[in-house]
Amino acid sequence: MTYFNQKQINYEGPYSNNPLSFKYFNPQEVIGGKTMAEHMKFSVAYWHTFTEDLSDPFGGGTAKRNWDHLEGMDKAKARVEAMFELLEILNVDYFCFHDADIAPEGKDLKETNENLDEIVALIKEKMAETGKKLLWNTANNFSHERFVLGAASSSNADVFAYAAAKVKKQLDIAKELGASSYVFWGGREGYESLLNTDMKLETDNLARFFKLAKAYADKIGYEGQFLIEPKPKEPTSHQYDFDVASGHAFLQKHGLEDVFKFNIEANHATLAGHSFQHELRYARDNDMLGSVDANQGHPLLGWDTDEFPTDVYETTMAMYEILKNGGLDKGGLNFDAKPRRTSFEQEDLILTHIAGMDAFALGLRVAHQMIEDNFFENIVDEKYKSYTEGIGRQIVDGETSLEELEAYALDNSDITNTSDHLELIKAQINQYILNINRGV
Amino acid sequence: MTYFNQKQINYEGPYSNNPLSFKYFNPQEVIGGKTMAEHMKFSVAYWHTFTEDLSDPFGGGTAKRNWDHLEGMDKAKARVEAMFELLEILNVDYFCFHDADIAPEGKDLKETNENLDEIVALIKEKMAETGKKLLWNTANNFSHERFVLGAASSSNADVFAYAAAKVKKQLDIAKELGASSYVFWGGREGYESLLNTDMKLETDNLARFFKLAKAYADKIGYEGQFLIEPKPKEPTSHQYDFDVASGHAFLQKHGLEDVFKFNIEANHATLAGHSFQHELRYARDNDMLGSVDANQGHPLLGWDTDEFPTDVYETTMAMYEILKNGGLDKGGLNFDAKPRRTSFEQEDLILTHIAGMDAFALGLRVAHQMIEDNFFENIVDEKYKSYTEGIGRQIVDGETSLEELEAYALDNSDITNTSDHLELIKAQINQYILNINRGV
Amino acid sequence: MTYFNQKQINYEGPYSNNPLSFKYFNPQEVIGGKTMAEHMKFSVAYWHTFTEDLSDPFGGGTAKRNWDHLEGMDKAKARVEAMFELLEILNVDYFCFHDADIAPEGKDLKETNENLDEIVALIKEKMAETGKKLLWNTANNFSHERFVLGAASSSNADVFAYAAAKVKKQLDIAKELGASSYVFWGGREGYESLLNTDMKLETDNLARFFKLAKAYADKIGYEGQFLIEPKPKEPTSHQYDFDVASGHAFLQKHGLEDVFKFNIEANHATLAGHSFQHELRYARDNDMLGSVDANQGHPLLGWDTDEFPTDVYETTMAMYEILKNGGLDKGGLNFDAKPRRTSFEQEDLILTHIAGMDAFALGLRVAHQMIEDNFFENIVDEKYKSYTEGIGRQIVDGETSLEELEAYALDNSDITNTSDHLELIKAQINQYILNINRGV
Amino acid sequence: MTYFNQKQINYEGPYSNNPLSFKYFNPQEVIGGKTMAEHMKFSVAYWHTFTEDLSDPFGGGTAKRNWDHLEGMDKAKARVEAMFELLEILNVDYFCFHDADIAPEGKDLKETNENLDEIVALIKEKMAETGKKLLWNTANNFSHERFVLGAASSSNADVFAYAAAKVKKQLDIAKELGASSYVFWGGREGYESLLNTDMKLETDNLARFFKLAKAYADKIGYEGQFLIEPKPKEPTSHQYDFDVASGHAFLQKHGLEDVFKFNIEANHATLAGHSFQHELRYARDNDMLGSVDANQGHPLLGWDTDEFPTDVYETTMAMYEILKNGGLDKGGLNFDAKPRRTSFEQEDLILTHIAGMDAFALGLRVAHQMIEDNFFENIVDEKYKSYTEGIGRQIVDGETSLEELEAYALDNSDITNTSDHLELIKAQINQYILNINRGV
Repeated sequence: MTYFNQKQINYEGPYSNNPLSFKYFNPQEVIGGKTMAEHMKFSVAYWHTFTEDLSDPFGGGTAKRNWDHLEGMDKAKARVEAMFELLEILNVDYFCFHDADIAPEGKDLKETNENLDEIVALIKEKMAETGKKLLWNTANNFSHERFVLGAASSSNADVFAYAAAKVKKQLDIAKELGASSYVFWGGREGYESLLNTDMKLETDNLARFFKLAKAYADKIGYEGQFLIEPKPKEPTSHQYDFDVASGHAFLQKHGLEDVFKFNIEANHATLAGHSFQHELRYARDNDMLGSVDANQGHPLLGWDTDEFPTDVYETTMAMYEILKNGGLDKGGLNFDAKPRRTSFEQEDLILTHIAGMDAFALGLRVAHQMIEDNFFENIVDEKYKSYTEGIGRQIVDGETSLEELEAYALDNSDITNTSDHLELIKAQINQYILNINRGV
Repeated sequence: MTYFNQKQINYEGPYSNNPLSFKYFNPQEVIGGKTMAEHMKFSVAYWHTFTEDLSDPFGGGTAKRNWDHLEGMDKAKARVEAMFELLEILNVDYFCFHDADIAPEGKDLKETNENLDEIVALIKEKMAETGKKLLWNTANNFSHERFVLGAASSSNADVFAYAAAKVKKQLDIAKELGASSYVFWGGREGYESLLNTDMKLETDNLARFFKLAKAYADKIGYEGQFLIEPKPKEPTSHQYDFDVASGHAFLQKHGLEDVFKFNIEANHATLAGHSFQHELRYARDNDMLGSVDANQGHPLLGWDTDEFPTDVYETTMAMYEILKNGGLDKGGLNFDAKPRRTSFEQEDLILTHIAGMDAFALGLRVAHQMIEDNFFENIVDEKYKSYTEGIGRQIVDGETSLEELEAYALDNSDITNTSDHLELIKAQINQYILNINRGV
Repeated sequence: MTYFNQKQINYEGPYSNNPLSFKYFNPQEVIGGKTMAEHMKFSVAYWHTFTEDLSDPFGGGTAKRNWDHLEGMDKAKARVEAMFELLEILNVDYFCFHDADIAPEGKDLKETNENLDEIVALIKEKMAETGKKLLWNTANNFSHERFVLGAASSSNADVFAYAAAKVKKQLDIAKELGASSYVFWGGREGYESLLNTDMKLETDNLARFFKLAKAYADKIGYEGQFLIEPKPKEPTSHQYDFDVASGHAFLQKHGLEDVFKFNIEANHATLAGHSFQHELRYARDNDMLGSVDANQGHPLLGWDTDEFPTDVYETTMAMYEILKNGGLDKGGLNFDAKPRRTSFEQEDLILTHIAGMDAFALGLRVAHQMIEDNFFENIVDEKYKSYTEGIGRQIVDGETSLEELEAYALDNSDITNTSDHLELIKAQINQYILNINRGV
Repeated sequence: MTYFNQKQINYEGPYSNNPLSFKYFNPQEVIGGKTMAEHMKFSVAYWHTFTEDLSDPFGGGTAKRNWDHLEGMDKAKARVEAMFELLEILNVDYFCFHDADIAPEGKDLKETNENLDEIVALIKEKMAETGKKLLWNTANNFSHERFVLGAASSSNADVFAYAAAKVKKQLDIAKELGASSYVFWGGREGYESLLNTDMKLETDNLARFFKLAKAYADKIGYEGQFLIEPKPKEPTSHQYDFDVASGHAFLQKHGLEDVFKFNIEANHATLAGHSFQHELRYARDNDMLGSVDANQGHPLLGWDTDEFPTDVYETTMAMYEILKNGGLDKGGLNFDAKPRRTSFEQEDLILTHIAGMDAFALGLRVAHQMIEDNFFENIVDEKYKSYTEGIGRQIVDGETSLEELEAYALDNSDITNTSDHLELIKAQINQYILNINRGV
């Protein structure tokens, strides 16, 4: 333990009347037959926690980190050490990374790969020592200027090839480190303007790229789950994986719907005009809920703020969807979140994760109790009961026709509906939150 | 008691495992020296509760009300009866109305005024009987087609005159019924397009209109607080009272800043790109926080949804601002909120108000505790302490110059800032909510 | 000719220095082998033009129409007469309607259908007389309170049946009147909140509904194109046909992708966070561009404004997509647009259509010239030429692998891209517009 | 001429069928008594053109510049040379800069100032040689990490002092170089969250800062116009100068309304929920239109895209407001705009400015013709004529009362309004654009 000091580990916080420590998260506490750690499989995001400098479009980095004085491979190795320290401090079992996060780019692809190999060996050693696991890894095919016009959807075939080589390397690493899943986020797979874009060629190429990756994974026997992470825009004006539904359309069109599931990010959902729960539900309904990037956006800002999740309404409904999905299988809750630019001290790396983990732990407790009580299930069963018998049953069973339905309607023009009482439901959710057993 | 039946009064709710009744609101409970009823001065909005049919731009009304079978003045009188019943049931002390809510428009202005007089007499009688009070009233100068091009800002001087006559009548009624405040919401005081709008003439006329109203109020000795209710858009493309700041600019320009305060609506704040708290704070900082239209919007929808408030984060920070303001003086918390179109049964009028009142009651409890603990005050004092001594003190006291500051800076180039730890604060707010004394 | 007077037909406009008449639209002028009328197949929307009263959520109707004094079936018949007059005046060949637009709802479904029959007979007679045609018709399954919880996706099976009966009737009418297409817009097929919604059952039922409709159309031999019209929200918080991509996902999932194409509305595109061109392009790329609802939204307003299209940048790129699609086959350009609430006089019905038709005519002229010059095609061919040979060719032909691509990239790490010069393209579009042959 | 080669100067463009050069801008052409150059006073923004690397939050810089190989003061000097070359090539008379753009930050404030002095001397020499002028300069009090919590509104008094010292230096430079105006853009003058912000102290300090700056300018005899540049958000969640109206409120509150005018940026207007024209009009109506940052945003993106302006509707209405303002006095049209990240070649610096200048030149031509024809003036005069006589005249002259207006209204209940015919006006604007004399 050298990068996070003792003060930070036994953190009492700056506001002494209410010190921060886990209040709701107890990793070994069993809820509904699984431990909290198993339910949530938290993961630390390498990029936001170890390489992010908290710069923004109008200002330089503000982050103060204990490895700032180092350079190159030394810094890369220090970050690995720091990460395993932080996982220990937080009781988090998983981590995630892009290639570019863990090792510096070399003078050419060969040297870049050698740098990766050296760090991956170190990570593997630390994993063996600590039992920590890789939730997913991915290739950063968006930051370098070569990807200015896209990666798999670049107009330049050389860039397609380069991006493919990077994915190959990451699939090798995924296998080497036993990554549960492998993620594709297409930060540059979209367009600045349609005026000079061949959208059909670009999206067809994107499908070709995914098929090449799948073929290679099969060849090397990598069995992790492939995940697409939708985002509507930023950095591009329009990204091809706009939301889960557009990703679903794309996968079906190209016969890839059984190969991929979705990695759903809360802030990407809201940028697309959807609630986080909507995206989770859509994926769950289609058996494509793979993993979650746990964060939250700012409702009044039009860009990706990647805030640590603290809104218990959001974490409750997210955990509800995850519990109803039977958990996340090969996925987890990755904190794709960064401290605010104004929360720049190293201790904020601990504080922010505690804030996010505790908010999800609270959400789990509330959602679990609701499911125990069949709270939503009773509401829905009552609401849709007309489809369990009579004409409703026939509709669901596909045993009717427009003519029969017309005959029924002609005799039944005067229809009575029942109020949804939505506000009552919301008031009851407040009561669930207030009455929850906090556990810790 | 004839319009809300006994089942509705002792409401157990449709979802039997968690029946709805007040869980956090106890009107006589004393918190910090005032009863909860005094702290919050809840008000029922006549329009949303008694005349709203829950139609929307794509469909007709869905509301089922026990006075639906009546017409004209009979219906108007039944609504008065129903309102006083509901106030009793809910333990709410105040109500608000537009002229158009309480009495039908007659064949001309004279008949309209006679209709109003008849209903106002009935209301006055019920007020005397029950002790209920009028928080504010206002003239509806936006619904009728005559206001298609504005009211005080209409391009048609006849419309200006008509609107003025309606305000005169309402000021007479405000005096007659002892309204604490009088509200101006300029639903049509804005433009569809600048291409055919003389914005200067229109806003100057708006100021003239306000001055005429003030002169008349003074003449008749009406001492209620004048309030402007900002809204950025809808129905018009741009409304002149866009937000509190633009209203503040307008009032100062026309020398009206001591005449008016603001009636701040949560959903109008978010439509303007601000948080509810921001608008409250801005008004408080300028001693212009008059009253509150308590509702909430939908973060993903671009129109005014006027939902009943249930988000405890929002109600907590709203009550924090109100408590720090020393209360609302002549204002209150008016539920400018309507049941969803899908919550169309009469009992929803009770359920929705309970949901909103309880959410605010919970917010009051949390905000009060935070203030007791100096939670935010300690954070802010620590953060800004550099302005209490040395160069900071000189800045605040106006006892320095650019030259002096340059001399100071030249000797002090290497500056250290302190992290804001925002995520920690948010986690602590969750703890305040979870740990609150629920009272009831 | 009795509903639009002569002054309105030879309109000189209120602003005498620049009277309005068609400046760019000449129906018989041949452009690229087709007349302008054939290229654009304009259609008048019955609802906005003949039944819309220009009310909004904060005010009543303002429209002044020459049939306002009539009631019931008399008014319905007058509107038919007025429509055929207007089609003549405007030189428009097509019209579109919902069932609810053309005939009043009766006391029950039977009487409603009888009302429809009477009006349809009149319309058929006028069509025979004038040669005007029905572009598409549809069932209004959203306005009546029975649809408060949805139609095909209602939680009430009786409502599903009623909606099905209405579609059956409209399919009969579509066959009777020879409608080129049949449209489904699901104004209530979505949710107010996920908290009480079984999204899977609702969307499965929606698919069942579409299959029943298709089976019936096949049975009666109706061969018009089935169209889905996506819209993300309003009136519901979330509509299932959010955008073209989500519709595409839905259709593929349910095996309906060969049955439907899309009816794309400009203002719905922007509400979904897409450009109009994006939605057209997506549909064109997937051979699913069926028809267009020609209007425009307000970029700063979050609701459907249904403005008449006047922005020549938008009409140019729309016509570009349509021309590249080889036209719209069984679709056309339906003006799903209404005069502003402040443009309430009857003559505005003519002025607004001229404004919209002329803007599209101008767009057609510009887009045609660009295609003649291969303006965009040259840009795109140059940009993507790396996929026509070498490694790019192999990628497109599916004749490579990650290993081969890696080998290529290892030898080709230093990649050069070419600027997209987007601003230059935009400047050249301005020149195309300014230099266009105006024709008329 | 060494940084832009001959090919770039006589640019024929990559798309040979339609080469780019000025088509509408002719600096010496006289329109309405002034040359086009005088009407528009174009300015090149140092930051976007000479220091911007086209990085974005998800990727590094892509810009290829002929001075990329240089470092430190050598690079700074090369940029000065390049700027004067570009001004010559483009026939642009003005430029603008932040301190941080023109010279590298030194090891402390003293060295930073020395660096500035050296470059300012060089700029002054080049200005004398070429006759080019400084439109405005400003201090970058937002990029460096010391400004993480604000500059004038920082919670740290040392930062206030440092920011003040930087403004002092820039005011000295403004005087030295004869800057027409001096701009304050408060990129960090706002908050991340209200939870830990003393908004009153922060905004009061902002006012104190402005007063100190004014006092110093008076002392040194600098007579340029002080300008506030509003922006609602980004980088902060909420900026105090949210829009022109909020700036106006602030200035009036602190008695600064005669000291400042506004520098209005198109993209900032749209981020605040206003049209560009609205902000210009508001400032013009209040005699506070100082200068313009000419760019455009993307209507579907929620961040500042700073695109070069090409939309002729926007440039027309902007030039209309500017012409009606009698020009911009000490302001001009500064291209606060950058090439897209995908337009990364050096020649794009020329192409983009031509695109923007030509779009404004076209707008000037159209707006001038409209004013010659009294196009909008006739519309407005007709619309508001009721205020020129009778009761309308009395209203405007302040010679009436609510009682008199009521008496008038009681006799005049039946009011007739006139349609605004907005769509007709938009169609006529299209005709103005198409029919304009292109000049060049």
